[in-house]
Amino acid sequence: MGSNFGHLFRISTFGESHGGGVGVVIDGCPPKIEISADEIQFELDRRRPGQSKITTPRNEADRCEILSGVFEGKTLGTPIAILVRNQDQRSQDYDEMAVKYRPSHADATYDAKYGIRNWQGGGRSSARETIGRVAAGAIAKKILREIAGVEIIAYVKRIKDLEGVIDSNTVTLEDVESNIVRCPDSDCAEQMVDLIEQVRNQGDSIGGVVECVARQVPRGLGEPVFDKLEADLAKAMMSLPATKGFEIGSGFAGTVMTGSEHNDEFHTENGEIRTVTNRSGGVQGGISNGENILIRVAFKPTATIRKEQRTVTNAGEEVTLAAKGRHDPCVLPRAVPMVEAMMALVLCDHLLRQRGQCGEVQ
Amino acid sequence: MGSNFGHLFRISTFGESHGGGVGVVIDGCPPKIEISADEIQFELDRRRPGQSKITTPRNEADRCEILSGVFEGKTLGTPIAILVRNQDQRSQDYDEMAVKYRPSHADATYDAKYGIRNWQGGGRSSARETIGRVAAGAIAKKILREIAGVEIIAYVKRIKDLEGVIDSNTVTLEDVESNIVRCPDSDCAEQMVDLIEQVRNQGDSIGGVVECVARQVPRGLGEPVFDKLEADLAKAMMSLPATKGFEIGSGFAGTVMTGSEHNDEFHTENGEIRTVTNRSGGVQGGISNGENILIRVAFKPTATIRKEQRTVTNAGEEVTLAAKGRHDPCVLPRAVPMVEAMMALVLCDHLLRQRGQCGEVQ
Amino acid sequence: MGSNFGHLFRISTFGESHGGGVGVVIDGCPPKIEISADEIQFELDRRRPGQSKITTPRNEADRCEILSGVFEGKTLGTPIAILVRNQDQRSQDYDEMAVKYRPSHADATYDAKYGIRNWQGGGRSSARETIGRVAAGAIAKKILREIAGVEIIAYVKRIKDLEGVIDSNTVTLEDVESNIVRCPDSDCAEQMVDLIEQVRNQGDSIGGVVECVARQVPRGLGEPVFDKLEADLAKAMMSLPATKGFEIGSGFAGTVMTGSEHNDEFHTENGEIRTVTNRSGGVQGGISNGENILIRVAFKPTATIRKEQRTVTNAGEEVTLAAKGRHDPCVLPRAVPMVEAMMALVLCDHLLRQRGQCGEVQ
Amino acid sequence: MGSNFGHLFRISTFGESHGGGVGVVIDGCPPKIEISADEIQFELDRRRPGQSKITTPRNEADRCEILSGVFEGKTLGTPIAILVRNQDQRSQDYDEMAVKYRPSHADATYDAKYGIRNWQGGGRSSARETIGRVAAGAIAKKILREIAGVEIIAYVKRIKDLEGVIDSNTVTLEDVESNIVRCPDSDCAEQMVDLIEQVRNQGDSIGGVVECVARQVPRGLGEPVFDKLEADLAKAMMSLPATKGFEIGSGFAGTVMTGSEHNDEFHTENGEIRTVTNRSGGVQGGISNGENILIRVAFKPTATIRKEQRTVTNAGEEVTLAAKGRHDPCVLPRAVPMVEAMMALVLCDHLLRQRGQCGEVQ
Repeated sequence: MGSNFGHLFRISTFGESHGGGVGVVIDGCPPKIEISADEIQFELDRRRPGQSKITTPRNEADRCEILSGVFEGKTLGTPIAILVRNQDQRSQDYDEMAVKYRPSHADATYDAKYGIRNWQGGGRSSARETIGRVAAGAIAKKILREIAGVEIIAYVKRIKDLEGVIDSNTVTLEDVESNIVRCPDSDCAEQMVDLIEQVRNQGDSIGGVVECVARQVPRGLGEPVFDKLEADLAKAMMSLPATKGFEIGSGFAGTVMTGSEHNDEFHTENGEIRTVTNRSGGVQGGISNGENILIRVAFKPTATIRKEQRTVTNAGEEVTLAAKGRHDPCVLPRAVPMVEAMMALVLCDHLLRQRGQCGEVQ
Repeated sequence: MGSNFGHLFRISTFGESHGGGVGVVIDGCPPKIEISADEIQFELDRRRPGQSKITTPRNEADRCEILSGVFEGKTLGTPIAILVRNQDQRSQDYDEMAVKYRPSHADATYDAKYGIRNWQGGGRSSARETIGRVAAGAIAKKILREIAGVEIIAYVKRIKDLEGVIDSNTVTLEDVESNIVRCPDSDCAEQMVDLIEQVRNQGDSIGGVVECVARQVPRGLGEPVFDKLEADLAKAMMSLPATKGFEIGSGFAGTVMTGSEHNDEFHTENGEIRTVTNRSGGVQGGISNGENILIRVAFKPTATIRKEQRTVTNAGEEVTLAAKGRHDPCVLPRAVPMVEAMMALVLCDHLLRQRGQCGEVQ
Repeated sequence: MGSNFGHLFRISTFGESHGGGVGVVIDGCPPKIEISADEIQFELDRRRPGQSKITTPRNEADRCEILSGVFEGKTLGTPIAILVRNQDQRSQDYDEMAVKYRPSHADATYDAKYGIRNWQGGGRSSARETIGRVAAGAIAKKILREIAGVEIIAYVKRIKDLEGVIDSNTVTLEDVESNIVRCPDSDCAEQMVDLIEQVRNQGDSIGGVVECVARQVPRGLGEPVFDKLEADLAKAMMSLPATKGFEIGSGFAGTVMTGSEHNDEFHTENGEIRTVTNRSGGVQGGISNGENILIRVAFKPTATIRKEQRTVTNAGEEVTLAAKGRHDPCVLPRAVPMVEAMMALVLCDHLLRQRGQCGEVQ
Repeated sequence: MGSNFGHLFRISTFGESHGGGVGVVIDGCPPKIEISADEIQFELDRRRPGQSKITTPRNEADRCEILSGVFEGKTLGTPIAILVRNQDQRSQDYDEMAVKYRPSHADATYDAKYGIRNWQGGGRSSARETIGRVAAGAIAKKILREIAGVEIIAYVKRIKDLEGVIDSNTVTLEDVESNIVRCPDSDCAEQMVDLIEQVRNQGDSIGGVVECVARQVPRGLGEPVFDKLEADLAKAMMSLPATKGFEIGSGFAGTVMTGSEHNDEFHTENGEIRTVTNRSGGVQGGISNGENILIRVAFKPTATIRKEQRTVTNAGEEVTLAAKGRHDPCVLPRAVPMVEAMMALVLCDHLLRQRGQCGEVQ
């Protein structure tokens, strides 16, 4: 009962890492939006495994099929179902993990919750589940661009303690895609790639921070008091696998400033009310103010590692485990399209909600 | 369309800072739970203004009235409506702010969204709105305690750069309530009080971090993939006024560790599967694992300050504003019961959802 | 968990027949709609007890108070809370019914479901609960009229076997309010009043059918496949107390026609596509087609009667009961504003949903 | 935004008559329920076209594939996705209907709502959409049977004016399936078959009434005041294609009785509180009372007929249309499994909701 997201632009994802496939049903998509399987595939290719030397070698083409809701290249306003078949399944890697719980993974909690689990792989807790989100996000991005000119860019800001210098106001998709780690600071990116390879060789893993900016967001999106824009963004991001923290604007760093230092003063620019600074991250009182929306998401190091760790079996026996299988030593390069997708899903839903309650958005 | 929260234990808050009153309707409360207005009032007193020298002098008793859903001291299973009347309204303080937008406040965005605003005060964006949450949270806490023995404690962890040393495993409500800043580290608390008074005298404000622990939480709470426990907690906390960030377990600090350092190894303790460390913060794969749930929330410095700032009027004229009215120089002492309430609302809702889908919780 | 209704225009009702009061919170109301307590009171007066010689003598003024969401006579876009206090409570009438279950009433099922019940009256199953619906419906009607020119009229079509002749295309509110039974066929209305008085004198009760028309409804309202307009209307009406059936357009009578007799042929009228007949009742494929929406609702005879009946106590002892208390011998005159309110709530919600997904309504 | 149904047992259907396929995603299914594709296929075969001489000759095998959520024959508690491919598509039949609106069909309203439509067939308004419902209903039925012993049987009660005599207390699935019209009164069934064939030969269509009983339903299901059991059943049934009316228990016929005639008196039977009669149809105050739930649904004559009718084109030109394509002259035999499915979906959702709010059901 937790695989739905959104109110007016509502998605429902399905699928485990092993089984027939994964996908999504989108309910409430506006009609007459041009969309092609290629546009969706472009985003899926950015998240697919095996795309570079620093991701998992699990190699799946992840070709998507649009099953419904699109006719002659345009959305019908009816539910859009998208399916990606599962293919490269080496479930024998999981034989040991059928009984041994991986530390900091979801094996034990799924067993506790449901009393049953598909032990052939990560099941529903696999990052494969995010395929449906990324596919839906591709459509949400298109709608945001067409209806309101919104532009969404995410990128790797930090890997472990290597932090890139990136200007969120000007960074482009091309900058992000210019290297395999998806950090637009190319010098830093090289060091990141080296670090990831080194960690992988040690059978270990690392984490970091993804930053995401949304530009040209209309004023007025966000529904106080519970569905504030930052609240829905926080939920969206913290629902991604491996996330441990969320910030908007000044974030935790803002807590060491005084109000007079922190406040975003207003001024007028070309007849428009704008803020001089953007410590608010584009949201005030839960509602977008027309400035860039800027968030950061903390991703922990991948839980599944080759290094031996202490654990227990599902029967409670204390054992050790050196995980087999093919896993990302660092999820961040592939997390970039996921963060963009979740940003798009939240903004698209709020765009429609605002239009519903208050009429056309500005 | 954003004033509802929860699925099975569902609350709907209402009310602006000025007008008839504020309150909440709780739908889906289990029947036969003993609850009194006094238990609710206890929590409301912890959040009310004027409670100490470091909070706003706005002095409202905030007496609650239970309008429905409780009979002879027990919940009926029907909606519980709770009302707190507004009283100490000095709307003349707001005359200037009727036209001048307070920097980093919600004045401008409410105007942009709705095209209308109650300029007599903070309106719906006032912290007064949280009265409904705290009242509902008091009932959620009671249910969690009665059905599952859950214990929730929040406290001030940091004010600006003053950070307390607190053991989340053992801290008690008494420790928290032992000083007016609600930081259980009493030495640090004294410094915090001094700092808040000093900042207030400067007409400025400060922020900080609230930490919250939930102990004895049953395994299995959380509904992947979107309603993961940490996702709903993040949304809950980021829906509170003035929040800029959320962390669970290791949070952002966890992103500089390797997987082998970060993972919570399993062992067996008195026949139960437990983790040796708790960097996961009590949640793995979006589902509670029986360890303490531990989160942190970043609160920015209060936006409304007496110091003069640059701003604009609603007509776009550039002006300056030195805010009048009575405001907290630091929201954190009063934010503590709000964070507890939101933790309780999330856990209570997930307890009922788990019971619905999977049967009795362990 | 069933006291919420609507998606974008969402209401949450609260309150039992005995206790502090009853009311409603409306979330998602469009901003800048002019609304006064008087407009709401007008509708409440149409449903209040003691309004005429054929309704229950329970005499409550049912004065409403708007607690929030309205400022200087206009909606703010924030939640609107409306409260009506309970007053004329003669709970001693219910002493016997504290233990004896009234046949065909909700006493036994509430006990079975919740294990607790406010035995001082009908509790949550009392028709008093509909106060919140009627108050919210008054606002929904206003929005529909202002945004789209929609007009909603309900009336008593039949009492027992006395059926009025009424033209749904032309009937007015004045026609409906011209007599106490709210049947616009005045000759029939007189007979109905006589019948109701006669039945009341026998300590018995009767039922009948309310018809409701919505005129000038925009095309395009209704969200297939589950939230079809007729599906949401059916739910709305069947959620009213004492309802046993729902029909739209031709209804059950349509089932004895052939397709060629039943279909509504299209033609063009002043450049607009219209149907020649309206057996569809204004909805085709779950979506409004611009013709009048026409529905009928079956209300059973009031369950609580003075005549002696066989029943059991909550301990299962077989007894008899001749109900005390003051009850309507026929609910239909007071059900008219309830049916109108539910029609308005459904149409208003769908108007906003259509605007959200597809842009401005025609 | 209307293709979701249910709260805890939540389904999301997708698919048009033409395109990749149709199906459903079920979110919130309890774990560890045994389910096979064969059990689902059994129900799909009861609704599939071409199953007998009185249904449409459109011949599709409608083989279902379970894509996720089931592992080694048992539900995982994760979303269950089920897909049925579209196959026998003769869209050339629809060339004329691409521009000519079929009277009383959804062509014109879909165009009005979305401004776009898949003109190759009925699109989303095709009865093919119910495949997803019937598949989900098969699982809901299984859960109801396993957890609570509930038994659901629907059957054709009336075709045009031919009404069968059927005892809802004892009728079995075998009785229903004993003839192609699914009317357990075999003499009447023969006449019905003759009538349907005769009407089909005339290029016309007919409607009727389906009745559905649910037996051994636990007490306490239903969530007043909006999600009363009869309200959710009414919505469920009125969301099926071609429905015009809904009744529970005595229905419209109950409106001509007096209260003393209509009320279901209580008595005690083997220590249990039971009603002597069942005019309530198993629901009192919106909550199941342990008696049989009994409902009736009115289906209009099929809108698409071969007989020539007046209509207009999408450009507003007045024309005539004699529909081509293959259509059911009477939808009722195939509607029987749809009504059962919707009954199962409502009861299953309410079973889980009751368990969530109030604990284990009796």
